[in-house]
Amino acid sequence: MANKKELRIGLIGCGFMGRTHSNGYNRVSNFFPDLEYRPVLQAVCSRTESKVKTFAEQWGYKSWETDWKTLIARDDIDAVDICTPNNMHAEIAIAAANAGKMILCEKPLSRTLEEGEKMVEIIKKTGVKNTVWYNYRRIPAVTLAKQIIDSGKLGRIFHYRANFLQDWTISPELPQGGEGLWRLDAAAAGSGVTGDLLAHCIDTAIWLNGSIEDVSAMTETFIKERVHQASGKVQKVDIDDACIFHCHFDNGSLGVFESTRYARGHKAQYTFEINGENASIRWDLHDLNRLEYFDHNDDSIVRGWRSIHVTDGDQPYMDKWWVPGLSIGYEHSFVHHVADFLKSLETGEPCSPTFEDALVTQKVCEAVIESGKSRSWKTIN
Amino acid sequence: MANKKELRIGLIGCGFMGRTHSNGYNRVSNFFPDLEYRPVLQAVCSRTESKVKTFAEQWGYKSWETDWKTLIARDDIDAVDICTPNNMHAEIAIAAANAGKMILCEKPLSRTLEEGEKMVEIIKKTGVKNTVWYNYRRIPAVTLAKQIIDSGKLGRIFHYRANFLQDWTISPELPQGGEGLWRLDAAAAGSGVTGDLLAHCIDTAIWLNGSIEDVSAMTETFIKERVHQASGKVQKVDIDDACIFHCHFDNGSLGVFESTRYARGHKAQYTFEINGENASIRWDLHDLNRLEYFDHNDDSIVRGWRSIHVTDGDQPYMDKWWVPGLSIGYEHSFVHHVADFLKSLETGEPCSPTFEDALVTQKVCEAVIESGKSRSWKTIN
Amino acid sequence: MANKKELRIGLIGCGFMGRTHSNGYNRVSNFFPDLEYRPVLQAVCSRTESKVKTFAEQWGYKSWETDWKTLIARDDIDAVDICTPNNMHAEIAIAAANAGKMILCEKPLSRTLEEGEKMVEIIKKTGVKNTVWYNYRRIPAVTLAKQIIDSGKLGRIFHYRANFLQDWTISPELPQGGEGLWRLDAAAAGSGVTGDLLAHCIDTAIWLNGSIEDVSAMTETFIKERVHQASGKVQKVDIDDACIFHCHFDNGSLGVFESTRYARGHKAQYTFEINGENASIRWDLHDLNRLEYFDHNDDSIVRGWRSIHVTDGDQPYMDKWWVPGLSIGYEHSFVHHVADFLKSLETGEPCSPTFEDALVTQKVCEAVIESGKSRSWKTIN
Amino acid sequence: MANKKELRIGLIGCGFMGRTHSNGYNRVSNFFPDLEYRPVLQAVCSRTESKVKTFAEQWGYKSWETDWKTLIARDDIDAVDICTPNNMHAEIAIAAANAGKMILCEKPLSRTLEEGEKMVEIIKKTGVKNTVWYNYRRIPAVTLAKQIIDSGKLGRIFHYRANFLQDWTISPELPQGGEGLWRLDAAAAGSGVTGDLLAHCIDTAIWLNGSIEDVSAMTETFIKERVHQASGKVQKVDIDDACIFHCHFDNGSLGVFESTRYARGHKAQYTFEINGENASIRWDLHDLNRLEYFDHNDDSIVRGWRSIHVTDGDQPYMDKWWVPGLSIGYEHSFVHHVADFLKSLETGEPCSPTFEDALVTQKVCEAVIESGKSRSWKTIN
Repeated sequence: MANKKELRIGLIGCGFMGRTHSNGYNRVSNFFPDLEYRPVLQAVCSRTESKVKTFAEQWGYKSWETDWKTLIARDDIDAVDICTPNNMHAEIAIAAANAGKMILCEKPLSRTLEEGEKMVEIIKKTGVKNTVWYNYRRIPAVTLAKQIIDSGKLGRIFHYRANFLQDWTISPELPQGGEGLWRLDAAAAGSGVTGDLLAHCIDTAIWLNGSIEDVSAMTETFIKERVHQASGKVQKVDIDDACIFHCHFDNGSLGVFESTRYARGHKAQYTFEINGENASIRWDLHDLNRLEYFDHNDDSIVRGWRSIHVTDGDQPYMDKWWVPGLSIGYEHSFVHHVADFLKSLETGEPCSPTFEDALVTQKVCEAVIESGKSRSWKTIN
Repeated sequence: MANKKELRIGLIGCGFMGRTHSNGYNRVSNFFPDLEYRPVLQAVCSRTESKVKTFAEQWGYKSWETDWKTLIARDDIDAVDICTPNNMHAEIAIAAANAGKMILCEKPLSRTLEEGEKMVEIIKKTGVKNTVWYNYRRIPAVTLAKQIIDSGKLGRIFHYRANFLQDWTISPELPQGGEGLWRLDAAAAGSGVTGDLLAHCIDTAIWLNGSIEDVSAMTETFIKERVHQASGKVQKVDIDDACIFHCHFDNGSLGVFESTRYARGHKAQYTFEINGENASIRWDLHDLNRLEYFDHNDDSIVRGWRSIHVTDGDQPYMDKWWVPGLSIGYEHSFVHHVADFLKSLETGEPCSPTFEDALVTQKVCEAVIESGKSRSWKTIN
Repeated sequence: MANKKELRIGLIGCGFMGRTHSNGYNRVSNFFPDLEYRPVLQAVCSRTESKVKTFAEQWGYKSWETDWKTLIARDDIDAVDICTPNNMHAEIAIAAANAGKMILCEKPLSRTLEEGEKMVEIIKKTGVKNTVWYNYRRIPAVTLAKQIIDSGKLGRIFHYRANFLQDWTISPELPQGGEGLWRLDAAAAGSGVTGDLLAHCIDTAIWLNGSIEDVSAMTETFIKERVHQASGKVQKVDIDDACIFHCHFDNGSLGVFESTRYARGHKAQYTFEINGENASIRWDLHDLNRLEYFDHNDDSIVRGWRSIHVTDGDQPYMDKWWVPGLSIGYEHSFVHHVADFLKSLETGEPCSPTFEDALVTQKVCEAVIESGKSRSWKTIN
Repeated sequence: MANKKELRIGLIGCGFMGRTHSNGYNRVSNFFPDLEYRPVLQAVCSRTESKVKTFAEQWGYKSWETDWKTLIARDDIDAVDICTPNNMHAEIAIAAANAGKMILCEKPLSRTLEEGEKMVEIIKKTGVKNTVWYNYRRIPAVTLAKQIIDSGKLGRIFHYRANFLQDWTISPELPQGGEGLWRLDAAAAGSGVTGDLLAHCIDTAIWLNGSIEDVSAMTETFIKERVHQASGKVQKVDIDDACIFHCHFDNGSLGVFESTRYARGHKAQYTFEINGENASIRWDLHDLNRLEYFDHNDDSIVRGWRSIHVTDGDQPYMDKWWVPGLSIGYEHSFVHHVADFLKSLETGEPCSPTFEDALVTQKVCEAVIESGKSRSWKTIN
């Protein structure tokens, strides 16, 4: 480690995503020993002193701040990692870029397309290294799906379908806003399931299947009012509880996407399937080490969906972990993202998805929300 | 059998559906010995003499005809079973009703809503017994789903989703029209996957989850031209190869439906899932003896989707067959339909879905097709 | 049908197996129209007149008897089908053979090896056509397994494992003996799970993997006493409730077999798996249309167990039924057995498993029981 | 961290298990912040200097040694972690205990029962804290199985079955012995699959279902000779390639166990199932986040195996990780073991399985090997 270059991280936000990213930084050097760079947990920032101190101690940050502007101003920070609620992404990212810091921003890029465009603009102007944490690209089974598709095995693509189903907001007693629940507050989150869940599905879809041309959506808010944790009062719920849309991809295939937090029995069931002329692929986050694959070129009498347990050394990232048959989990996608970001510092290549890539997803999300409101098709520019 | 009342069947059409219905008639008395009625295979009709003779002999029909009008005119026929391509449904049904025959009509009811309305009109006028063969209602696992829903276990419904995926028309070499392929010819079929596959999904959905209020659809014809078997020439393909729509149900839940014949790896994969406040259900035609059920009221630490192997004597229809654990198949749904039709002769109750029930499905199909064409939402009246 | 040759069946026994066989005879001509022979339900026999009359009427038998000797003596019977409890197999079979009747005998061949040997002896002497209803060989997925193995795809075999798990006798309140429960009475059944369930596993195993050399077994009777339905008194239970054994096959592979009626959650879960050098296969009766297949020759990054939905026309027997994706059930194995028996009349070939084949299974069963009793290895001669 | 007590670890062995343990130490404080103790990676030891240096750097060890006796002699080591091949366990453990060090020993406890007995003897004499890394007990789904069983939900137990199937030694080209392959060398490993794989199954079984009374086993070495990496010569293979045994548990239930490295298609498929009077449980290492559970007390019409995705905060260990639906992996079982060991320092309770617990497993393994050799039942004392 001694002779590795350091990447000094300043993390802003100590929530769930703060934990996943911190774990990514902590583990990467154990498992990717050949990287030139190693992350150093230089500082973490959160508004509440007691909370940020505890977090810093638990995760091994060298120091902590309560004002993100102070953190950005520090000379000993190379990269700013933004894990705040969505409403802070743009402001922090712009400040960080202006300060010449690299930026690793939690998804979605922004609340609105307008915010996202400003973020991309400043990135272009300052040229700072950047990436957005659409972590599911780096689940080995999903990366393998990308390899299979890129190899041409699927042929012409006809269909893409993806669902992200959860069930955690069914109770009307659940409040909105504030600690742990900002995702239910439109002011903080921008949107509901569209930015939180569908954004993941869209990012993967574009990566695997190319651009989306137009969308037709339906959104719903099942529970119209909830107590807001900030005010303590019952307030209108402005987020989308569920969102369904279909679309055309530029390659002529049809897409259908669904997301909800009201699908009883599904905790975090992100699934996608892609059907090509010659082969098909499907994946399910609940069983994330498996990729299902159907190859029409197999002998017809022994043809069937293959359940690939993606844990072998010749499958993506898996030479870094254990031995065949031994599973990894959700958190490893973040370790892989850190590794790929560090590698991009060596190579000078971008670490996808960049802000610019993520802006495309943002455009689709915005079109989806607008289509839902206007009950009409929206074209993506 | 001697003292059972006879229901003398006249079957029109000797294709795939002619076989499934004939098998239903042949087997029902072996497995439902308590019915007052028994079907008698009085006559079968098809235009080609050699074909209809062979069919009659294979299935045990007492006689055969080559002109359906002759069959309908016969005094020794109590019920007419329509298994022709869709373009003949209306004409035959109207003639049969006018002749006072009971009618068992293969789904979909008709090519168009207009045809369907005329069929319902004549039924109302003549009062003949009737039913439409939406057979999937009578797969025991699907019937059990209905019982569970009717028992109130699901609570408020939020989501309904259904897919019917096939892959048999991917090759551009496949012709359209004529023997075995009339489903690819819009003139004969009315529509493509919408009438053929989605109609099944819609029938089940309405049965399980109530009326559909409005729809927004997307249709696609992937292979634009195919040789027509009748003309021998390359002709424009007018059917929908794929159709996706989302909708609102009257109970406030959201629906999403997809159907295609271009989903590589799926032979006849009809699946549906319904998510309620307290419980969820899902089913898959490829594993038709299983119903999956999630009950949120289970103890949280041992809560999970249950895979119910619907083969016990206290589950729908299963007291008629074998012993627990022993599967039945696709064809049994038709046997059950025959049994229920015979039972309806005893009770005087309608045998659902009736023509009137099926017309509702037809309305949704028509709205779906129109929505796809116009790229706009359509309301169901 | 008119010009088909008739095979006039005399069925002895109206229980569960009487129903499965009758259904086989009733359906075969509808689905296998090219056979030269067709079965005719000439007579059925059972001791209780009211029961046999009802059965005859329900299944379409032309006549009935209450004394099996009378049935065998009839000139208008070509083949005797033995569906009685096991303790009658030998006596009836010997009488039938002596009367020159073909014999279709329900499995297991006999209660004891000694009985079985006498049955084979008389068959050899009289030369009558014969078969034993080990029906699972003719589930299409199992037949496909045989084809795959015979094609050499597996290479050297290392392992064979099979389970037959049920849970229907867990309650100590369940009586033994008599109507519906003779399988729990050693005098009628010969043994418990060994003859009832393991016999199926052994038949399949020998068919797929060759002879068994020696066995080491453990048997258990969990509920030591039950009321006997005949006497109305609590009596010692003499059958094996559970039996586990391991063995060597002649080809050098190792086998492990388990059977029980005390495996809560399993209704009739017969599973087997065979592991070869190059490929493996597994099957599960609860999902009988599927065969799972692993081929090590697949590209390593997309290698996985294939779930083959055995419903295509190029898979065994499936050209006779519906269309790809549409399942058949348990009962179809009996239809296939009837078809193959009728075909064997055309070709003059034996219809396996013959009495001689079934005697080999009987030898293994006897060795298993003896090994369990003596707590020592037993060699199969 | 500052005010936590330190547990200074000296790790001996840098192989696969050295990695899993090191990762356990590195991560525990991030995820179990409430523990009083934290592990410190004080030193690592391996014979090859270049290798141990690299390992120390990669995993963050403060220092390294090439002689384990030196490591044990160091004052700054509180606990010795033994990750060497099995043939070194006894010698190192005895020396470490005599030096007053705590011991965390990789499984199996020893090559032979005799070695194991000496290890337990010294533990009793010196009273040092100790544990053996049977890590699968601490997969959350397995720990949940233990909770369910202890709650009494299963009632009387009838059956226990477990398999550990691998396929990595099928090629005859694979050498035995030496770097990475000591598990194939009887001198280093003691036994083959029995100590490597079955020992895991036996440990879990005893934990879940109590003591084993007697065993009857069959062992096989499929490839009789392999090149030895040390000598470079073809030598006889003395390990068991496969081992199958059945047994009686003290509670009257029957067990059947199978293990092999020749089951094509299985990388590391450890499965177990336990059938009780009222409920059953099963688990599969390839899908380690799931526990399957069948409860006979469920309403009969909706009864089925439940697939429990063990990722909720009220399930074992899962409050420490992410949010419901997000999987963890194989390695987490080691983190949990470290956490429980640290906790045991606080409470003074043993951290199971202790050397004494592991000796019971060793007794069963020895009886299994002897039974296989002698082809006779062996009683466990």
